[in-house]
Amino acid sequence: MSTEKITGAVVRYLDAVANGTADDIAACYAPDGTLEDPVGSEPRRGHAAIREFYAGLAGARRRTELLAIRVAGDSAAFHFHVRTELADQTFEVEPIDVMTFDEEQRITSMRAFWSPGDMRVAR
Amino acid sequence: MSTEKITGAVVRYLDAVANGTADDIAACYAPDGTLEDPVGSEPRRGHAAIREFYAGLAGARRRTELLAIRVAGDSAAFHFHVRTELADQTFEVEPIDVMTFDEEQRITSMRAFWSPGDMRVAR
Repeated sequence: MSTEKITGAVVRYLDAVANGTADDIAACYAPDGTLEDPVGSEPRRGHAAIREFYAGLAGARRRTELLAIRVAGDSAAFHFHVRTELADQTFEVEPIDVMTFDEEQRITSMRAFWSPGDMRVAR
Repeated sequence: MSTEKITGAVVRYLDAVANGTADDIAACYAPDGTLEDPVGSEPRRGHAAIREFYAGLAGARRRTELLAIRVAGDSAAFHFHVRTELADQTFEVEPIDVMTFDEEQRITSMRAFWSPGDMRVAR
């Protein structure tokens, strides 16, 4: 798989996180894809569990920005910024995510590296 | 394990890559630690194989700089710059590495995300 195709899949994922529904984001994953966010937590598997994870974003204004990406084989590691504006609080964090992809550039696994101390909260 | 301890272990590793011998770098790893650089290549296991990997750095002027780090549980993902000056060529690359650590902050696994296209070569 090419670096360009994997980079494109990451860009589409970040666009879905910023502008899509939970269904749109889950559709970036393979049907039995896994999500571990943050690393060390119990992984979620499959579209229903993944959709549930992102459902909290509904109604929030969101913004994402890709800061750096490195592709190796069928995997990518990327540093990005995500800002989530809820009614009374705004969250900002710049995780480093690691993803693997299938032949159709669907996410087969996602692992998000960040600690609670990396999260900035503004009212 | 604390974020500070893991960050300290990454800083010591990057210092060893810049200023240490292959033995110094291998000593940052647990005895049965693994190294996969780049991701997708056959992993090396244990101090002898790891020392051999870094032996090519002997005699090269090296510089490393930590650009970003995120810690989660006993793992870290970090973006860094490494410049290696050989007699007739200089290599520069900014990989994203993922490491896991044991209780003594020794590296139990290292996976380096980068592609050949990320490497800059100057004569």
